[in-house]
Amino acid sequence: MRSDGRQARELRTFAVTLQPNKYAEGSVLIEMGDTKVMCTATVDEKVPPFLKGQGKGWITAEYSMLPRATQTRNQRESIKGKLGGRTMEIQRLIGRALRSIVDLQALGERTITLDCDVLQADGGTRTTSITGSFIALALAIHKLSQTVKFAKYPLTDYLASISVGVLQGNALLDLNYEEDSKAKVDMNVVMTGAGAFVEVQGTGEESPFSRAELSEMLELAEEGIGRLIALQRDALGEAGKRIGVFQA
Amino acid sequence: MRSDGRQARELRTFAVTLQPNKYAEGSVLIEMGDTKVMCTATVDEKVPPFLKGQGKGWITAEYSMLPRATQTRNQRESIKGKLGGRTMEIQRLIGRALRSIVDLQALGERTITLDCDVLQADGGTRTTSITGSFIALALAIHKLSQTVKFAKYPLTDYLASISVGVLQGNALLDLNYEEDSKAKVDMNVVMTGAGAFVEVQGTGEESPFSRAELSEMLELAEEGIGRLIALQRDALGEAGKRIGVFQA
Amino acid sequence: MRSDGRQARELRTFAVTLQPNKYAEGSVLIEMGDTKVMCTATVDEKVPPFLKGQGKGWITAEYSMLPRATQTRNQRESIKGKLGGRTMEIQRLIGRALRSIVDLQALGERTITLDCDVLQADGGTRTTSITGSFIALALAIHKLSQTVKFAKYPLTDYLASISVGVLQGNALLDLNYEEDSKAKVDMNVVMTGAGAFVEVQGTGEESPFSRAELSEMLELAEEGIGRLIALQRDALGEAGKRIGVFQA
Amino acid sequence: MRSDGRQARELRTFAVTLQPNKYAEGSVLIEMGDTKVMCTATVDEKVPPFLKGQGKGWITAEYSMLPRATQTRNQRESIKGKLGGRTMEIQRLIGRALRSIVDLQALGERTITLDCDVLQADGGTRTTSITGSFIALALAIHKLSQTVKFAKYPLTDYLASISVGVLQGNALLDLNYEEDSKAKVDMNVVMTGAGAFVEVQGTGEESPFSRAELSEMLELAEEGIGRLIALQRDALGEAGKRIGVFQA
Amino acid sequence: MRSDGRQARELRTFAVTLQPNKYAEGSVLIEMGDTKVMCTATVDEKVPPFLKGQGKGWITAEYSMLPRATQTRNQRESIKGKLGGRTMEIQRLIGRALRSIVDLQALGERTITLDCDVLQADGGTRTTSITGSFIALALAIHKLSQTVKFAKYPLTDYLASISVGVLQGNALLDLNYEEDSKAKVDMNVVMTGAGAFVEVQGTGEESPFSRAELSEMLELAEEGIGRLIALQRDALGEAGKRIGVFQA
Amino acid sequence: MRSDGRQARELRTFAVTLQPNKYAEGSVLIEMGDTKVMCTATVDEKVPPFLKGQGKGWITAEYSMLPRATQTRNQRESIKGKLGGRTMEIQRLIGRALRSIVDLQALGERTITLDCDVLQADGGTRTTSITGSFIALALAIHKLSQTVKFAKYPLTDYLASISVGVLQGNALLDLNYEEDSKAKVDMNVVMTGAGAFVEVQGTGEESPFSRAELSEMLELAEEGIGRLIALQRDALGEAGKRIGVFQA
Repeated sequence: MRSDGRQARELRTFAVTLQPNKYAEGSVLIEMGDTKVMCTATVDEKVPPFLKGQGKGWITAEYSMLPRATQTRNQRESIKGKLGGRTMEIQRLIGRALRSIVDLQALGERTITLDCDVLQADGGTRTTSITGSFIALALAIHKLSQTVKFAKYPLTDYLASISVGVLQGNALLDLNYEEDSKAKVDMNVVMTGAGAFVEVQGTGEESPFSRAELSEMLELAEEGIGRLIALQRDALGEAGKRIGVFQA
Repeated sequence: MRSDGRQARELRTFAVTLQPNKYAEGSVLIEMGDTKVMCTATVDEKVPPFLKGQGKGWITAEYSMLPRATQTRNQRESIKGKLGGRTMEIQRLIGRALRSIVDLQALGERTITLDCDVLQADGGTRTTSITGSFIALALAIHKLSQTVKFAKYPLTDYLASISVGVLQGNALLDLNYEEDSKAKVDMNVVMTGAGAFVEVQGTGEESPFSRAELSEMLELAEEGIGRLIALQRDALGEAGKRIGVFQA
Repeated sequence: MRSDGRQARELRTFAVTLQPNKYAEGSVLIEMGDTKVMCTATVDEKVPPFLKGQGKGWITAEYSMLPRATQTRNQRESIKGKLGGRTMEIQRLIGRALRSIVDLQALGERTITLDCDVLQADGGTRTTSITGSFIALALAIHKLSQTVKFAKYPLTDYLASISVGVLQGNALLDLNYEEDSKAKVDMNVVMTGAGAFVEVQGTGEESPFSRAELSEMLELAEEGIGRLIALQRDALGEAGKRIGVFQA
Repeated sequence: MRSDGRQARELRTFAVTLQPNKYAEGSVLIEMGDTKVMCTATVDEKVPPFLKGQGKGWITAEYSMLPRATQTRNQRESIKGKLGGRTMEIQRLIGRALRSIVDLQALGERTITLDCDVLQADGGTRTTSITGSFIALALAIHKLSQTVKFAKYPLTDYLASISVGVLQGNALLDLNYEEDSKAKVDMNVVMTGAGAFVEVQGTGEESPFSRAELSEMLELAEEGIGRLIALQRDALGEAGKRIGVFQA
Repeated sequence: MRSDGRQARELRTFAVTLQPNKYAEGSVLIEMGDTKVMCTATVDEKVPPFLKGQGKGWITAEYSMLPRATQTRNQRESIKGKLGGRTMEIQRLIGRALRSIVDLQALGERTITLDCDVLQADGGTRTTSITGSFIALALAIHKLSQTVKFAKYPLTDYLASISVGVLQGNALLDLNYEEDSKAKVDMNVVMTGAGAFVEVQGTGEESPFSRAELSEMLELAEEGIGRLIALQRDALGEAGKRIGVFQA
Repeated sequence: MRSDGRQARELRTFAVTLQPNKYAEGSVLIEMGDTKVMCTATVDEKVPPFLKGQGKGWITAEYSMLPRATQTRNQRESIKGKLGGRTMEIQRLIGRALRSIVDLQALGERTITLDCDVLQADGGTRTTSITGSFIALALAIHKLSQTVKFAKYPLTDYLASISVGVLQGNALLDLNYEEDSKAKVDMNVVMTGAGAFVEVQGTGEESPFSRAELSEMLELAEEGIGRLIALQRDALGEAGKRIGVFQA
């Protein structure tokens, strides 16, 4: 049994508030236990310079934590004058992950920016950001589809992410901060609704891990992500109906 | 009658959620209509270098908007690599305003940092940040007083802030974004519970204003701030009891 | 009587040297007592991107202090690599104030940049910068009017600024550095030749102030600004004749 | 058969020049085909602030490319004024990987900084940097061991890294730039001499991948890393003898 | 005859205003024709970290131009967020030149910072800054000598600087901006009162120059610097008496 | 005799490796004793904004040292976030020097960027960078001439650079780091194949120097540069044949 009473294969309490922001094309406040992330999707009818004139769209992401999202206050990156390596790594990951389930050609020459602002952090902020960003993105594309006649629906599949780790010899799903800081291995996995891997990032800085441990963690992740995608589907309802479906 | 149906002297709907953040010493989510600001107070048992060894404390503030707090998305200042002039002006104002009702000697050698993060903006974000920061500060000092025996309670009075302006010849209280962008004069006022002025900032860039208009705006502000302080008092309850009171 | 022998309602010695700079379209070295500011106006036949193609002009300002303008040397902002909050606040104020008396439509698609470089500081550098900038601007527009046939003269009124404060219970006009650092309230006021307010910024960080004190300071400021505008008129002579006058 | 004539399981030509730098405590010029990286290890008898007084050492890494290491010239990050996300991600990875095989307690209060400067890039610069850095680190610790009597030898195992990918349905080892840009999946793996995983980073941005593909890539990586570690052992000779061995 | 009526070997009009700044330990407004530089010397009873505890002092310089010192306005380096290469080159030159005639041991553990702010530029701003900085430095050390009993007077000689160039086959002394921009060679020379060279910097970017031209320019510079040092001596009067003299 | 056994007029061992980089249009690894610099020339079919549409080309240079090029490790300028004054000074010098022997009109609207990356430093890195950059530039222009029919060959002459100094009363050629740090005068000279001076930069910070010492150093430099240019000619072979020659 884990410190918060969960089983090894159990997700934390999942909650979403849809459209908490009155301006964004898509937005969601997602909670995985005490980790709370505000995700907004902004549609812009332009693409970055490197894509101009190619008829393709772009998906990008930015990630930030409020200074007091954590136990001790962190200095703002706007005051430091630059993004830290961790922030850059995470926002590159989020953007890459989401692009894997968007048909950029079908989207057309527009950019959707996902902003993930962590209001409170208790482990798993990057995976929660991905899971929440997917919902914000789906809402934005659904809204867009009401004015733009897409020949093909640009969202090709569902997408969610979860962390897994090994702690005292046990593989655990969805680590909270306390578990994460004690785990010997920490792995973040991103998968599609079809069950394919988009990202697998495992780190054994404290202690290298074996092939068997890797397999066990991957299985746990697959199971957890399956459940998250079911939850996304419920939350999106009508707005999720056309994901991955070709238009007749 | 105003576009949102309010009377000239009417405040927008005021709502506070106390302690939405599980780590901060004091926190509040404050809403004035569609303007929503997360304010957290962080207590640090250190003071900035210029105050070291003087037995005095310090109050400082930081202000930021989420990128999609507004109708069109704003670039993050962390990505620009520097704070804009507007941000600096606002956070200097918040810090200065709050220091006016704190006895820094009584606080002792500690710093309280107020973080004001605007989740959604519809005019009046700086005044709402001051009004909310006061609550977060009061909660933090109340909590601190349970472990630190203050010879004198460091919070000497209540404090709130509101905007006023002149639009089509009428003085209006608590402008929303639409009104603010059309107003010929825009004034932000900060006052104490005792009814004294802490800041008066009026700007007539579009059109200079007369002494009579100034007086009318100040009266409106006094009235509105009086109401806000009553609402703060209700919200704080027990935590606000010792404000301004000498300990026997 | 004040430390420098002045009466409460007395301005410091005012002096201006017109066109000290052989390149600028308008320039003035202004002195208020020991505060000395070099103000230059540069005319540029372009407007910032946000105004392009609208047929309107722009007025903007920059403010800086030489490192040894003050009693102890300050680090240059060029070496820090960024502007401080105080600098940004001041240059935003100067630009806003000057725009209030310029008809940007009449000016046409050109930008006038006011540079205010403080050679020596003894209190009131921001108000002196505004008063001096107005003169530099008037000279530049006068010079411009010799080559450009303005349908309407772009300068609609005079403009000056002064500080007032409360020290030991007395309202004082035009505070020097020593007075400014001891004053319980510090207020900067900007007014037009027609006697309207453009900016009113009062701060009672050390001690909040009453409505009566505010009124007394505003009266003092009105009187002082009236005298400054008379001095500007004298200094400008012929170059000030068309200010606020419609062309037949 | 691959474009450069290699088999799917074949490494590119591996070459190392030991101690090409006369100042560094350890240095190596490592070549994997046309990818050439200069790795130097600098020993500093200090630790970063967060480790002071704990009797532990630190390993950190920096990564950079010469502007013309690539087909088209890249702007220097020193001129941009900041490190890009890719650079940060890579240098965080290198440092983390190397720390996994160093006993920081045994190292004592000193920092070893690995500088990886890519002279020419043809794919796999991050994995080559890790493999080369290990050699530079081993040389530096060997040299250090001649003056410092380590109770335990601080290097606990060998470490190398390689990339694997899936291209046109085939899993390939050690991708060059051309292969890397066409691959549907790209994975970087870091392993120890004992055959444990330290990092597994697989990305399927272009196209998600299956569990079977993941397994095949991991096997290829294991095999390739085994060969690289044998090459490191040969190259280090005497200097590699005490790695992972307890001192009697 | 030159465009401004001077002979080839003639200096521009030289003028100095001593102590124009009421705070600085030493200050001078120096004019060479239309080039005007404000030089202040600030004494600080500290040395930079690399000199701590060695009983030696330090001399450093900073150089800047007001935005409208030139015919077209230049962007401030504080707004660009960094110093340009030209500024750095010039301030390094000024500091180096002045250190050559200061006995840092005799000065003791203090730093003197020379600030050279160009109010108006018409060629020769770096050489004028050196000539003026020497005067500000001499005034500051003279003032310091009234409270500090120097075993040896820290100023070991006079120092001045001038530019020379070759224009249409003629070597010219003290180039103004127009001449400077047409000259095929441009050389800046710094010399001591004793007639020794401190800096010789000749550049023939437009057209390389011969040994004979170099000799002719050096002679002109020697002559011009001799005259400048006589002018410095006159200006300093009593304050220059102990320069280069050992105390009995 | 010098510490490394050389005579006063003797150059260090000179070695060049041509085209060590497979991507650059021209590249050379140049060694002067233990100083090793990688120079690459990149041809870009564009010019900077200030030259657009004038039919002229541009030559520019960047200079950097690997962190461990020196005895103690230097912090990267990319991490500091800005270029130091020394770097800027050097890269401005390299660019200026090379432009003196390029006919920018003949080059046409293209930019050649010289990157000088110091792999190992033992004195004379800036002079070695100039001598090496010339070779890289000559290779790039030679290559360019195979596709572009130049009406006039853009390289008008050879160019090389060397340092000279005075140490214990003796003028020495080509100082290594140890000599450089002890020399009382340090001079860098750049000359053309025709024997004209392009740059003469002598600094006597530690001790001013006489006219006679200056003459002696210039003679030494002339002699050394003559030998370097012969070595460049040998190295370039066919690629150097058209330098300075008009096409029939």
